[in-house]
Amino acid sequence: MCILYMAEPSSAAEWRQAFSETVLELEFRQWPDVGDPRDVEYLIAWKPMPRLMEQFPNLKVLYSAGAGVDQFDLSDLPEHVSLVRLVDGTMADIMAEYVIFAVLALHRDMLDYQISQRDRAWAPLPIIPACERRVGVMGLGNLGQVALERLQPLGFQLSAWNRSPKDVPGGRCFVGVEQLHEFLGQCDILINLLPLTPETTGILNANTLGALPMGAGIVNVGRGAHVIEKDLLAALDTGKVGGAVLDVLDQEPPQPDHPFWRHPRVLLTPHIASNVQVKGAVDVVARNVYRERRGLQLLNTVDRSKGY
Amino acid sequence: MCILYMAEPSSAAEWRQAFSETVLELEFRQWPDVGDPRDVEYLIAWKPMPRLMEQFPNLKVLYSAGAGVDQFDLSDLPEHVSLVRLVDGTMADIMAEYVIFAVLALHRDMLDYQISQRDRAWAPLPIIPACERRVGVMGLGNLGQVALERLQPLGFQLSAWNRSPKDVPGGRCFVGVEQLHEFLGQCDILINLLPLTPETTGILNANTLGALPMGAGIVNVGRGAHVIEKDLLAALDTGKVGGAVLDVLDQEPPQPDHPFWRHPRVLLTPHIASNVQVKGAVDVVARNVYRERRGLQLLNTVDRSKGY
Repeated sequence: MCILYMAEPSSAAEWRQAFSETVLELEFRQWPDVGDPRDVEYLIAWKPMPRLMEQFPNLKVLYSAGAGVDQFDLSDLPEHVSLVRLVDGTMADIMAEYVIFAVLALHRDMLDYQISQRDRAWAPLPIIPACERRVGVMGLGNLGQVALERLQPLGFQLSAWNRSPKDVPGGRCFVGVEQLHEFLGQCDILINLLPLTPETTGILNANTLGALPMGAGIVNVGRGAHVIEKDLLAALDTGKVGGAVLDVLDQEPPQPDHPFWRHPRVLLTPHIASNVQVKGAVDVVARNVYRERRGLQLLNTVDRSKGY
Repeated sequence: MCILYMAEPSSAAEWRQAFSETVLELEFRQWPDVGDPRDVEYLIAWKPMPRLMEQFPNLKVLYSAGAGVDQFDLSDLPEHVSLVRLVDGTMADIMAEYVIFAVLALHRDMLDYQISQRDRAWAPLPIIPACERRVGVMGLGNLGQVALERLQPLGFQLSAWNRSPKDVPGGRCFVGVEQLHEFLGQCDILINLLPLTPETTGILNANTLGALPMGAGIVNVGRGAHVIEKDLLAALDTGKVGGAVLDVLDQEPPQPDHPFWRHPRVLLTPHIASNVQVKGAVDVVARNVYRERRGLQLLNTVDRSKGY
């Protein structure tokens, strides 16, 4: 029984160590030292791989080394191979830190103050109370729910938009495409935590950005492809969008001439809002090996019909 | 009975309106329209004023239009005149927002990412879990206590330093000058919320900054005069201090050639971390008029022996 690691090479030693500290009798191999490919039952991968089943005929579970699975071609994966996301509570905590940072940066006008500092201008702005600021989260998976929980004590007016109805602490859950514009119309600060699927690709475009209140702030911690970047740029330049905190872009890293590098109303970070935490991820694998042996349903499996 | 408003003129209308909505029979006058100075029993002021008692012989209470009272010369104020700080819970909430923003900015390397963005470099850094980050608060007044309460759910290791022992949620309270260096030695991120007194002036200097762990972050939301700025600049340039989020400076606004304007490891804001909230402040005045009539001790009075 063997697990093959094909994700970020610089993290391999940490993964190997974490597996060695479990009770699993699972041989850890690191790509490209595959050995006999027929031994490989589990795979940890970040990027898609062509002809996966031809290479690993005994593959049982493909573990995505990221929160999303949009990088994989799900149609290429046989039904009997499970696809599992390596999310754990720590990952949601780390994401929530970023979200709170980003929301407070927009709420407290930090992009304006950054411009003022650059221009050597001492220019205080009025403080808007949190209770007058409407913050909306798109996507109520685990990451979205933890983000909402952590935002609540700060006193914002919260709401969310989701495919199916869920509880929103102290606020409303807008549901489905028919309520999207209504949701956006009451978001002073919008946080995107959606999974990337065919339905959500390009969901933040000229039409939907136009539904936001004037000067709204945007936090994108989903995927770059959720946003039509030229539409966001136009909305930033008209002031429709007052500021954007972006952790993901359509192409990463972006080209040197990408307008967001130097846009004064964009705070750009290099896809660091959260990442898979090795200890928690290995724990998911260990629990799934245990469950598989007992015929129980695996944890964190992706519903391929939904794409997340 | 009259209250004279001598603080920020652009806010006067808001104060007048707030007083008009109370049941107080208190005439609101705005400087310089003093009328008969003998009518003035209450004064709202931000800046000190020479020969105060000569000008207003019937003054009973001087209300400071800021959280601190360091701007007043307390020796110039007769004992029978009370000095009151116009702090309320909302002010602590707003301060906590800024503190959380600043701590998360330092914790999540946002100064580095700002430099990277400027240089068009996509350079992710490792994420340190909050449970491995030691955050210390200097000054456990109301503002410091609320800041600690709001930081706790984020999972940091918390501690505080105070003149007298107080409870710190999940952490230790270091007390007095003899424990200052020990406190500083375990602060990866240091937040200054001390009142400015003769004892705390210049408390962050080459000696105390030298006691911090290498690369520590600093958040100053106290007063500019708590910090010896040339010592902080030197500590930033050696890397002893890894980043500083400063809302206050020794001179505000700073001179155009002040080095912090363009320092890549300084995030500078124009004294906006919090401010007196008019509704809450008028409520303090109203409750004090009520208490004075009944011979009760006034709320939020300053202990002149301590200076806060």
